[in-house]
Amino acid sequence: MRGPVAHLLDTPHHDGSPLYAPAGAALGERVPVRVRVPASGTERAVWLRTIRDGEPRLEPARLDQETEHERWYVADVLVHNPLTSYRFLLDEPGGYRWLNGRGAHQRDVPDAADFRLSAHDPAPAWLDTAFVYQVFPDRFARSSGHHGEPAGPLPDWAQPVAWGTEPAALGRDTSTQLFGGDLPGIQSRLDHLQRLGVDTLYLTPIFPARSNHRYDASTFDRVDPLLGGDQALASLSSELHARGMRLVGDLTTNHTGAGHEWFVTAQADPSSEEARFYYPSDEPPGYVGWLEHASLPKLDWSAPGLAGRMVEGPESVIARWLRPPYGLDGWRIDVANMTGRYGGQDQTHEVARMIRSTMRAHNRDAVLVSEHFHDAGADMGVGGWHVNMNYSAFTRPVWSWLVEPGSTLPFIGMPVVVPRRSGRTMVETMRDFDAAVPWSVTRHQWNMLASHDTARLRTVVGSRERAEVAAAMLFTYPGTPVVFAGDEGGMTGENGEHARASMPWDEIDAGGGPHWDATTFETYRRLAALRRSSVALRTGGLRWAVVTDDAVAFLRETADERVLVLLARGPWSGALLPGHLLAPGERAQNLYGGGDLRLVDGALVLPGDGPGVQVWRLA
Amino acid sequence: MRGPVAHLLDTPHHDGSPLYAPAGAALGERVPVRVRVPASGTERAVWLRTIRDGEPRLEPARLDQETEHERWYVADVLVHNPLTSYRFLLDEPGGYRWLNGRGAHQRDVPDAADFRLSAHDPAPAWLDTAFVYQVFPDRFARSSGHHGEPAGPLPDWAQPVAWGTEPAALGRDTSTQLFGGDLPGIQSRLDHLQRLGVDTLYLTPIFPARSNHRYDASTFDRVDPLLGGDQALASLSSELHARGMRLVGDLTTNHTGAGHEWFVTAQADPSSEEARFYYPSDEPPGYVGWLEHASLPKLDWSAPGLAGRMVEGPESVIARWLRPPYGLDGWRIDVANMTGRYGGQDQTHEVARMIRSTMRAHNRDAVLVSEHFHDAGADMGVGGWHVNMNYSAFTRPVWSWLVEPGSTLPFIGMPVVVPRRSGRTMVETMRDFDAAVPWSVTRHQWNMLASHDTARLRTVVGSRERAEVAAAMLFTYPGTPVVFAGDEGGMTGENGEHARASMPWDEIDAGGGPHWDATTFETYRRLAALRRSSVALRTGGLRWAVVTDDAVAFLRETADERVLVLLARGPWSGALLPGHLLAPGERAQNLYGGGDLRLVDGALVLPGDGPGVQVWRLA
Repeated sequence: MRGPVAHLLDTPHHDGSPLYAPAGAALGERVPVRVRVPASGTERAVWLRTIRDGEPRLEPARLDQETEHERWYVADVLVHNPLTSYRFLLDEPGGYRWLNGRGAHQRDVPDAADFRLSAHDPAPAWLDTAFVYQVFPDRFARSSGHHGEPAGPLPDWAQPVAWGTEPAALGRDTSTQLFGGDLPGIQSRLDHLQRLGVDTLYLTPIFPARSNHRYDASTFDRVDPLLGGDQALASLSSELHARGMRLVGDLTTNHTGAGHEWFVTAQADPSSEEARFYYPSDEPPGYVGWLEHASLPKLDWSAPGLAGRMVEGPESVIARWLRPPYGLDGWRIDVANMTGRYGGQDQTHEVARMIRSTMRAHNRDAVLVSEHFHDAGADMGVGGWHVNMNYSAFTRPVWSWLVEPGSTLPFIGMPVVVPRRSGRTMVETMRDFDAAVPWSVTRHQWNMLASHDTARLRTVVGSRERAEVAAAMLFTYPGTPVVFAGDEGGMTGENGEHARASMPWDEIDAGGGPHWDATTFETYRRLAALRRSSVALRTGGLRWAVVTDDAVAFLRETADERVLVLLARGPWSGALLPGHLLAPGERAQNLYGGGDLRLVDGALVLPGDGPGVQVWRLA
Repeated sequence: MRGPVAHLLDTPHHDGSPLYAPAGAALGERVPVRVRVPASGTERAVWLRTIRDGEPRLEPARLDQETEHERWYVADVLVHNPLTSYRFLLDEPGGYRWLNGRGAHQRDVPDAADFRLSAHDPAPAWLDTAFVYQVFPDRFARSSGHHGEPAGPLPDWAQPVAWGTEPAALGRDTSTQLFGGDLPGIQSRLDHLQRLGVDTLYLTPIFPARSNHRYDASTFDRVDPLLGGDQALASLSSELHARGMRLVGDLTTNHTGAGHEWFVTAQADPSSEEARFYYPSDEPPGYVGWLEHASLPKLDWSAPGLAGRMVEGPESVIARWLRPPYGLDGWRIDVANMTGRYGGQDQTHEVARMIRSTMRAHNRDAVLVSEHFHDAGADMGVGGWHVNMNYSAFTRPVWSWLVEPGSTLPFIGMPVVVPRRSGRTMVETMRDFDAAVPWSVTRHQWNMLASHDTARLRTVVGSRERAEVAAAMLFTYPGTPVVFAGDEGGMTGENGEHARASMPWDEIDAGGGPHWDATTFETYRRLAALRRSSVALRTGGLRWAVVTDDAVAFLRETADERVLVLLARGPWSGALLPGHLLAPGERAQNLYGGGDLRLVDGALVLPGDGPGVQVWRLA
C-alpha cells in the first residue's frame, strides 16, 4: 500500500457560503466577500475582480484577519447588475493566480466559472432543512389495498396490473401499465416518510392523462379521478401541512398531452385562441411535438393568452394549485430547459420569471425547480428557476464513481454504459458544473441519486456498501437531498421505466424481504438525522480536503462548526490533514461511521479503510 | 539536454475549418461535420451531440473514410437554432471521451467549450486575406511636414508638441499632446503600408473631440478639421480603394464626449430628445460616465431616437460613413462589451444586430469588429459583432510566453506585471478562449501583438528575436493579423499612452535609425508575404502538434495543403512527428526560417534550435 496522499487544503478558497459571502444581495448594495489563503501562500496582494456592465474591474482586497494558519482578505462587490460575476486575483512572485469556482489557475481563464452574486431572491429558506421524497403516484400506495389489480372503471389506455408486478422496461406497456396507486394511498403512508425523516413530498404529475406517468396532461384544471380527484389532493395537502410537511407539484410547461383540452380545441378550430398555443409543422403529424412525439404537442410561448392561462395571474394553473385548499409549496417544471425555446425563439427566462412572479404573489415561500439534465448554468440565478434537478453536478458524477465494476447499465441519456471513473474525475466534474451556477443555487440544488427517469441507485452501484457511500454523499453535500421513493429500501430497476416498481408494503411492514432492505432504510434514516443535526452539513461551505481515485474527503464549514466527511469506495492509502482543523484542545467527535480520527505528530490521520463512510465534527 | 518530446497528434480532432465543417449554414439546413481519429484510437463508435432548443441530442456518426493512419467520421448537424452547439462522443473501452473546442475529456463537461455553428452571416470573405494596419491619426504622419510643432489654429485643450517628442506616459498630457498627424499625411504614406503588405487601414477615431485620441467625440457628423475634414477622408478612402485597399473606422457606441452636441443639448434642455440619451445619476457629475469619467457620458440605448441617429437607417452615423464618398469598409466599435449594458438593462446584442443590419444594407462587405478585452464568448456568433479585438485568446497569452524575463511592465488591464508563462500555459489559454467562440469567428478574429491601448510589442518581449517569434505567430495563426503602426519597425513604448509615438519618417526613409529597426520591418514584410502565399495559413484548420515550455508547433491544414509552423523562444529538446504528415515521396519545403526537416526512421525530426521560427509546407 502507498503512503498517505497529500491533502488539498494548501490552496486559497472561496465559496458563496456565509463564511465568505452574504446569502443575498440587493441591487445597488455593496456586499463584502472574503477569501482565505493558507499561511503557506506567497501572495503580495489580493484583488477582487468583478464584471460590471460587461467590463472587468479590479479592486484591492484588504487583509481582514490573520492567524498562524491562514489569512483572510475582504473586498466589496457592488451589486450593480442582477447577476454579478466575480473572482479573486492573487498577485504572487513569478506570476499570478485567479481563483474562481473551479479553483486556482495560474493563467487567464474565461468567465464561465466565475463566482456569482444574484440580486434575485434565492430559493425559500425552508430548503435549508428540506429532505424531499419523490413519489410517482401510480406506484406508491393504493387506498384500496395492495393486492390484486386496480378496480375499474379505468380509461381505455390503461392496462391494470397487480401490485408488485415487475414493471415493463421497454415498449408501449411502460406507459400503460396501471398499478392503481392514488393520493389517499400516499396519505395513508405518511408515517413511512416521517420515519425516514422526510419533510417534503414531491409528486410527479397528478393531472388526468393518457399514460401512467401523466406527463401528457389532458387538462391542468383538475386532479386525475384515478388518483382520487381534487378532494384527495386537498386532503393530502392538509394532512401534510398538519404534520409540518410540504408538498411540491409537477407541471409540463413545454408541452401538453395530445389529449389536452386546449389541443383538442386547437385541432377542431384553427381560429381558436388555443390554435396559436401550438407550433404548426409541414411534417406529420402536422404540429411540433416534444422530441418529435405526437403525443406531446409543444407549447408556443409567443401565443397570446397562453401565459394568462398557465402562468400569469390568480386564475393561472401555477397560481390555482398554490392556493388553498391545495396549497402546493412549489412546482417542479418538466423539460424546463426546452420551455419557450424553439428555433430562433428563446423565451425560457421570460416564462420562468413569470412563473416565479406568480408563485411569489400566491405563496411567497414556494420553490420553483427546473428539470434540465445537462448544463443548466445559463438558466440559473437569473430570476426564474430557483434550483435544478441536479443530474449534471451530482447524480452522474456520483454514479460514475460508485458504479459496480463491469456494469453494463446505460448512462443517463447517453448511448454508452455508465463509465467507472476515479474520485478525481468525479470531483473535477462536480466542481465544473457547480461552478456554472451561483452558490445561492448550489446550496439548494435538488440532488438525487436516482429518479423516475433513471435506473435505481442500488442497481447502478450493485452493493449495499456502495449505496451507503452514495447516500452519505447525498446527505452531506451542499444542496437539497431528494430520494426517489423506494431507494431507501434498496429497490432495484434497470432504467427509468423499470425502476417504477410498486412499493412492497407487505415487506416494509414486515421489516424487510426480497424487495426491501431494512438495513438500507436504517442507513438513510440515520444519514437524514445526521444532516438535521448539523448546521454545517445543511448550510456550510465546501472545501475538498482529499481527492483520490478511491476516496474523497471534504469539509463543510460555518462560522461555528466544521464537519469532515470521508467517503471511500474501497480501501485506499489514507491521508494526513493539518491538525489545526481540530479546535484547540478538542477531540474529533464521530457523527457517523464510528471511526477514530487520531491526532499524531500534529496531523489528523484519515484511515484508509473502505468501502465506508466516516463523519466527524472537528469544531 | 532531454530527448525529443512527445507530439500531440495522437488525439481526435475537429475544428470548424473547411476540412471539418461548412463555412456557413442556413437555418433549417442539415450540414455535415467531420471528425478525424488517429489509427491508434480505440473507439467502438462515434456520436454527434447537438443541443436543440436547449436539449442535448445524440446521433451516431458514420465512418466516412479510413486510411492507414486515421479514420474520419461524419454526421449531420441540423441547424435549427441560430447558434447550434455540438461536440463529439467517442465510445471507448473503459469509458468514453467528449471532444469539444478544448480537446478530448474523459468526463462530462459543461457546454461552454462546445463547437458552434452560427446561422448568421460570417465576417466578409475579404478578411481571409486581410492584413490590417492600425493607425492613431495624430501620430502617423503630418501633411505639413514632420518637423516642429503643428501650426495653429488649435483648440483650447491642445498642447502642440514637436514630431518625434516622446509621448507622455501618465497624466493629463497623455490626452492633450497634439503631434498634428492628419489624414493627408496618412495618404501620403500609403506606399509604406503597401511595401509591408497591408491591405486594410484601420483608423482610431477621426471625429472632432477634446483629446488627441478622439474617443470623446463632440460630433459624429464630420471629420475633425485638424485631420483635414470630410474631404480628406473622402480623398484617403478614394486613394485606398484605387490601390485595392480598405478602410475601417472607429466609433464609440457606449458613450460620447461631454462636448458632444447631443450631450450639450441634453444638459441645456431636459425636455429635449437628447436628454434621454444619457443616464442621470444622483452623484456628481449628475450623469453616468464610462468608468466614472465625467468626460465620457454613457449612452442609454433604451432612449427613443438614439438608434435612429446612430445605428438605424440611411441617415444614421453607421450608414452615412459607409456610403460614398467616404465608403468605409467597416467599423470597429469601442467598448463594445459595455454598449447597451447598464444595471438590469442588457441591449448589447440588440444594438450590435442593428448595426450589422444597417451595415449590410449600405455595404454588404463591411466588417463589424468589437472591442472586448476579456471573455467575449457570450457576445460572438449571435448576429452582431463579426469578430473581436482578440486580446484574450491571442495578445495576452502570446505576451506571457514571449515576455522578456524579469520584465516589470504592467499586464494589459491588470494591477500585476506581465507574467512569464510556459508554452503549455499559452496554448491552454488560447484554446480556452478560442473555444468560447465559433470557428467562423476564430478564423477572422482581429489578432494583435499590441495596440494603442497597450505597451509596444518590442518593449514587452525585449528583443528582435522574440519579436520575430511573436510576429510569426501573428501571421500563421487563425485570424486576421492586425499590426499597430510602428511595431513593424520595432518601436517601443511602456504603456498605451507612451506607445503612441510619432512615426520616425526620417529614419524610415533613411533605412533605419535609433527608433526604426529596418530588419524587423523586413521580417514583418516576409511574414505577411508568407501568409499570402499559403491558403492553409489563411484559411486552414489548427492542430497543435507539439507544446512544450519553450517551443510550440502546429499544423494549418486545408484539403490541399498542410503547413507546419514551429516557434521557439529558446533552445528546446526537439520532437519527432509522424512521417506520414509528409505527402508520400515528397520533401518538406521550407517556407520560412531556412531550416531542414529531415525524415529519419519514418519520423519528422523537429530541430531543437531557438529562439527562432521555421515554417514548412508538408503537402
